[in-house]
Amino acid sequence: MSEYVLIAIPAVISVLALLSAFLFNRSVVLQAQGNDRMKEIQGYIRSGAFTFMISEAKVMLITMAVIGGILWILFYWQVAVAFWIGSLLSLAAGFIGMSAATHANARTSNAAQKSFKDALNVAFSGGSVMGLSVAGLALIGLVLVIVLFRKWFLPAGLAIETDNLLNVNLIRGALIVSAYSMGASLVALFDRVGGGIYTKAADMAADMVGKVEMHIPEDDPRNPATIADNVGDNVGDVGGLGADLLESFVGAIISVMVMVMYIYVGRANPGIAGENGLIAKLGLAAGLAPESYWWVLLAPLLIVGGGIVASLLAILYIRFSRRQEGMQAVLMNGTRLAALLTAGTTFLVVWLSPLSLNVFWQVILGLAAGIGIGFFSEYFTSSSFRPTKELAKMNQSGPAVGVTEGMALGMMSTFMPVILIAAASIISYQLGGLLGVAFTAMGMLSFVAMTVAVDTYGPIADNAGGISSMAELPPEVRERTDKLDSIGNTTAAIGKGFAIGSAAFAALGLIAAYMWSAASIPAEVVLPQLPIVGQIISPTGGDPIQVGAFVIAGLMLGAMVPYVFSALLIRGVSRTADILVQEVRRQFKEMPGIMKGEETPDYNRCISITAHGGLNKMFIPAMIAVATPIVFGLVFGRYALGGFLIGALLSAIQLAIYCANSGGAMDNAKKFIEEGAFGGKNSDAHAAAVTGDTVGDPLKDTVGPSLDILIKLMSVIALVFASLFPLYPVFL
Amino acid sequence: MSEYVLIAIPAVISVLALLSAFLFNRSVVLQAQGNDRMKEIQGYIRSGAFTFMISEAKVMLITMAVIGGILWILFYWQVAVAFWIGSLLSLAAGFIGMSAATHANARTSNAAQKSFKDALNVAFSGGSVMGLSVAGLALIGLVLVIVLFRKWFLPAGLAIETDNLLNVNLIRGALIVSAYSMGASLVALFDRVGGGIYTKAADMAADMVGKVEMHIPEDDPRNPATIADNVGDNVGDVGGLGADLLESFVGAIISVMVMVMYIYVGRANPGIAGENGLIAKLGLAAGLAPESYWWVLLAPLLIVGGGIVASLLAILYIRFSRRQEGMQAVLMNGTRLAALLTAGTTFLVVWLSPLSLNVFWQVILGLAAGIGIGFFSEYFTSSSFRPTKELAKMNQSGPAVGVTEGMALGMMSTFMPVILIAAASIISYQLGGLLGVAFTAMGMLSFVAMTVAVDTYGPIADNAGGISSMAELPPEVRERTDKLDSIGNTTAAIGKGFAIGSAAFAALGLIAAYMWSAASIPAEVVLPQLPIVGQIISPTGGDPIQVGAFVIAGLMLGAMVPYVFSALLIRGVSRTADILVQEVRRQFKEMPGIMKGEETPDYNRCISITAHGGLNKMFIPAMIAVATPIVFGLVFGRYALGGFLIGALLSAIQLAIYCANSGGAMDNAKKFIEEGAFGGKNSDAHAAAVTGDTVGDPLKDTVGPSLDILIKLMSVIALVFASLFPLYPVFL
Repeated sequence: MSEYVLIAIPAVISVLALLSAFLFNRSVVLQAQGNDRMKEIQGYIRSGAFTFMISEAKVMLITMAVIGGILWILFYWQVAVAFWIGSLLSLAAGFIGMSAATHANARTSNAAQKSFKDALNVAFSGGSVMGLSVAGLALIGLVLVIVLFRKWFLPAGLAIETDNLLNVNLIRGALIVSAYSMGASLVALFDRVGGGIYTKAADMAADMVGKVEMHIPEDDPRNPATIADNVGDNVGDVGGLGADLLESFVGAIISVMVMVMYIYVGRANPGIAGENGLIAKLGLAAGLAPESYWWVLLAPLLIVGGGIVASLLAILYIRFSRRQEGMQAVLMNGTRLAALLTAGTTFLVVWLSPLSLNVFWQVILGLAAGIGIGFFSEYFTSSSFRPTKELAKMNQSGPAVGVTEGMALGMMSTFMPVILIAAASIISYQLGGLLGVAFTAMGMLSFVAMTVAVDTYGPIADNAGGISSMAELPPEVRERTDKLDSIGNTTAAIGKGFAIGSAAFAALGLIAAYMWSAASIPAEVVLPQLPIVGQIISPTGGDPIQVGAFVIAGLMLGAMVPYVFSALLIRGVSRTADILVQEVRRQFKEMPGIMKGEETPDYNRCISITAHGGLNKMFIPAMIAVATPIVFGLVFGRYALGGFLIGALLSAIQLAIYCANSGGAMDNAKKFIEEGAFGGKNSDAHAAAVTGDTVGDPLKDTVGPSLDILIKLMSVIALVFASLFPLYPVFL
Repeated sequence: MSEYVLIAIPAVISVLALLSAFLFNRSVVLQAQGNDRMKEIQGYIRSGAFTFMISEAKVMLITMAVIGGILWILFYWQVAVAFWIGSLLSLAAGFIGMSAATHANARTSNAAQKSFKDALNVAFSGGSVMGLSVAGLALIGLVLVIVLFRKWFLPAGLAIETDNLLNVNLIRGALIVSAYSMGASLVALFDRVGGGIYTKAADMAADMVGKVEMHIPEDDPRNPATIADNVGDNVGDVGGLGADLLESFVGAIISVMVMVMYIYVGRANPGIAGENGLIAKLGLAAGLAPESYWWVLLAPLLIVGGGIVASLLAILYIRFSRRQEGMQAVLMNGTRLAALLTAGTTFLVVWLSPLSLNVFWQVILGLAAGIGIGFFSEYFTSSSFRPTKELAKMNQSGPAVGVTEGMALGMMSTFMPVILIAAASIISYQLGGLLGVAFTAMGMLSFVAMTVAVDTYGPIADNAGGISSMAELPPEVRERTDKLDSIGNTTAAIGKGFAIGSAAFAALGLIAAYMWSAASIPAEVVLPQLPIVGQIISPTGGDPIQVGAFVIAGLMLGAMVPYVFSALLIRGVSRTADILVQEVRRQFKEMPGIMKGEETPDYNRCISITAHGGLNKMFIPAMIAVATPIVFGLVFGRYALGGFLIGALLSAIQLAIYCANSGGAMDNAKKFIEEGAFGGKNSDAHAAAVTGDTVGDPLKDTVGPSLDILIKLMSVIALVFASLFPLYPVFL
């Protein structure tokens, strides 16, 4: 097939995905909004969410302008433009998803007045807008970058190096797609960190004053922080999640592309030499036939394009299912259908392409590992299984034991996911070297549209429940939205497993791409301003003998970064929550009419305090993620930076699983007690579990997801800036 | 100097240390024990501690018999004997220290009736018994092993390998000292884990029922768990600590010795080839002069011998200081004096030896890094500094925020220690390669006698305070013992920093020794029964190309082990505490006379429940530490095991610092509030801080110290069993 057809297919698929997203959005907006009270509350939430996202976007736009400018000066303008495209699309994904979610929330509670199935349809349509937008935007952006800068993706422009030919264009093309991915990652980190701090600070403060001090239920309109809490669900769980999975998706695709391009760069690459035998297993070789170039380069786009089509079909299956009962099974079947169809489309692509069938097995391996990790996330965090039940039981011995046991549970839960990640990485390596690992990561993310749709539907249902309570709708409405929410939790656990597993794999793929590039690419090829830049930095030099100690030091320092990063996030949440607690207490004290329901609390003040905290505490952690790999690389050189990235990856995987599952289990243990176990609500066990849930909140919703992005962002930054760094430490 | 003189000097010094320990013990025993009530309580504590230690020793003796038997069958009988000597001396150190501590506790409270200085003298003498015993036993054992198996330390017995000469004796000698260290490590792990679970379970249960439910003060004789709590201080903080530092000390010395012996093994070792330039900086070379062999081999023993003499002088300075006031300064000066004198004796040894002066700088670097890490431990955990003060303040927002902030503080505190460890490892590597790193680790531990003396004095003072309260001595007595305790805390923080820092370095040294050995030693040299053994295991084979993925998988799996290990420990503590809580509640309910002070609680039942829990939960974590490196090595081979060990080291360093400092800060934040800050006792902030302290307890006193041993034990096991493992994964 000609390259034009090959690039047209993903382009058409992404337009199709965006069109479907538009139609789903329309179908949501056409629903009735409900009574005036509901409209009012929805208005508060929507405007609060937009206000925050716009303030956040301003900070990001300035940061992106500066970083893009640096890329322009150091490299080429095309690199900067690709970076901007990546970041703007990521930004757009967050906004689109959040807009759909804040349309869908009140409409879901309104539909819940009719029937459960109607409510599910609205909520799931809202989630589908997000899922299809994320996948569609990511893919169309990549197509756009390739088409715009087509010249840099043509395998030509040979330059004579010392004793080899270098395929200069492709090295620069690899830099361009890396910058695209870096833009998406940076926005995702801001979204996750800022949104994560916002949502959990509001949640903690609302719970601590409302439930613990004033003894009013969750989502009580008398609680001044309650709207901020509902805004938080949208900016954190919807906006943050969308940007997060978009960047995972992009990272996984581009790490395959970059490695393929390096293979075409050819024998000059010593990093590849040892891997030729393994690469051959994928139907590739260092001296690959030029006519198959476009097929191989665009295969990842075709494979994920297949995943998008598969997801769209599965979404339609769920949306138009006529069953009124057993919707949990329908959702699970939908997820299974998406996975199965993705396997089918992948087989088709691989079979048509010059690639070996091993690529198909790589993708299947990724799908299977993701589902496996998802299962263990569910096992450790769902109250249907022993660990969370036992945790709930231990809460009878008080909050200290509850928290301690929750931490132990999280630590224990690292066991199986890490074994699965290690096993999948060993097998995928056997099937095709480091490039094989990258294909596996891509496989895990190939039906991302479906994952995001299901994940986003949860917070919409959550918000709908909040609106039902605040608008004082009949209790059966709240029951329906609660049921909606709880069904979403199981599928969401699988989604979380995918997020962590794919982050580990995508980072491994990016680190592998970095190491190939670091080992072989001379700075002159990608740094046109080298003579000027060279006066500031020194991209050569050093004594190779002593590099071992620096790799070990890099491993240690890299392993430390996720801890400091997490500490800043947790503090951001608790400090912001602390300020908000003071404000909520003040309102209750100074406006005694609030508790009697005679006075409206000042919701907006709470919203703006939380937003201020989220924005304030977001910048430093984000800058740590950006600056540390660059500074470390400049001082200690390319090899030590490889150690640094691996150290960070190792430490972040464990911490992310520990935090996500500790928090998830503590949350569900509390819900399990609320359902009547161990004394039910108002028991001592419940009070202890509420403390545990509050401790777990920032762990599962701020730290865990942000760590996933941290390792990918640091790896992609290393990949983009690799040529700046000296080979060995500057002071040797 | 002849080898006889060189070995006689450390022998004489260790006898001197043990003799001084005996005299200090006598000086304690000769003190008056106090009134009958005090004698009775001391009797309970002493017999409770001995009962537990003896039960624990039984489990260990069986384990040691089995493991020693395996070593005998696989290797030589000398290896088994060295292992047994190491484990028995470690066992003895725990018993001696605990005996001295349980003699000194009541006598310290009695002396506190006279004056503060008298109390300090008794407590510090008790601590000195432990310090001097640990250092003396470790050194005399090593001398004994060398003298007993002198033949294996003679650089001869050349065997012709493929194309090189191999110095067979030294390879076996290295195996013998490694087995000695492994014995000490195994006992230390049992002591730390068993004692750690015991002490924290008792502490948690006593606090949860006593303080929180019954509102009676700490160490109230009406609390049935109070004696178990005091027993715990002795079996955990004294017995566990002694065995722990003994094994760190031995591990640090033998990793230098093993590497020196491998250098003499000669050019056959490819692992060394790349390092020759660095080793030369230490005055050594691969083709080293045979006449300097004994000097170089025994230099580590002479250097630490100097450290023992220095510590003894510093201990005498503190013990016979006439100052009545400012004892904090005296203790700090003593520690500084010990460090300074150690520097002096080290200079003397290095100057007399054929070693380069760089070895002296290595040792100084170790001392400095240890003190630096200690300072940052203190900064993050002492209420004199900002972090703990702020943590105390945040407790005003409730227990959830307190715990969350405590966790964040611990994560943040990894920053500086890891930078110091990385910097010290880079510098020491520049000064002498991996052998230089091992010398730095040894430097950090060289004045271990002083560190242990100061560390042990703390729990003695703590126990003395408990006895004063239980025996209802006048309040000024309790005030004096509290002051004693608080002075000890500052110096103890330095000790904790040394423990973590030295564990990281010692493990690095052991891993380096392992990798030298793994890269070069043919199985036939150390596995006499190879034909038989070979039927079960396969010490060769595989395809080197694909080993990279296994190293990465090893890093990931290794990084996971400390998490699962920690989870088991935390669960051990909370499950045991939970059973004890039920028992204490039962006693209060069924014996209403207890609260009125008319009935004596059943202390022994609490002691035996705690002991049962400690012993029960100790075995599986210990076996994980022993079995995982062996199983991993057998399946995935020597190179992948190197990755596994480094992954475990990286993860354990961060987790250990995080746990130790989170727990320490939460403890001191509570004390700070009790001193009157933020509402003082009975405030909401205090209630929150008590929860935080309870969460932190198992982190700082069970998990943190056990992780230090875990990484050293796994590394030394890999070193001993290296020759059993195939080079590459068995299934390739």
